[in-house]
Amino acid sequence: MNESSSAPKPPYYAVIFTSKRTDGDNGYGQMAAKMDELAAGQQGFLGIESARVTGLGITVSYWESLEAIQQWKENSAHQAAQAKGKTDWYQSYTVRICKVERDYGFER
Amino acid sequence: MNESSSAPKPPYYAVIFTSKRTDGDNGYGQMAAKMDELAAGQQGFLGIESARVTGLGITVSYWESLEAIQQWKENSAHQAAQAKGKTDWYQSYTVRICKVERDYGFER
Repeated sequence: MNESSSAPKPPYYAVIFTSKRTDGDNGYGQMAAKMDELAAGQQGFLGIESARVTGLGITVSYWESLEAIQQWKENSAHQAAQAKGKTDWYQSYTVRICKVERDYGFER
Repeated sequence: MNESSSAPKPPYYAVIFTSKRTDGDNGYGQMAAKMDELAAGQQGFLGIESARVTGLGITVSYWESLEAIQQWKENSAHQAAQAKGKTDWYQSYTVRICKVERDYGFER
């Protein structure tokens, strides 16, 4: 889901996941890569973008529908990762489920 | 707009701004700090979060209404910054205007 991808026309959906990590990796990097790969195979998945600065991570994933988001939330491997997130990886996080109503861009 | 802030209940609005920068700073850092400060003084502003990795920046700003987003877009100093964004700072960018329909979080 970047400027060069064939993104759908709105409306579609975005999940904004902002997080503060605990100290150390604790297996996070490996699991995050695995979850990105697994998400990409889900029905209705459109794309994912992540960035991090000290103290804050932002991951935005894009989906065709609320149903696709719900199915990914309930995926059993993802559920196991969510549990590890609470016990090991995150100090705190916020999940925001959004309807993308309009988009536009610029390319040099 | 972080986990400890007194965020409003949904619905509220988010602007997801993803970008690829040109090489060099070219005055970007100073202007970005100025724009963050100016945005924070706008009516309806709720918060802003930014992170960056090589090749990708994600900034999410949060607003009470679509009208507040439109007013910020039309702010004259912001308009000047937007023009500089196209001539100097960005290789490409995408703006997504979103309605936050639901949110939840976790705090250790």
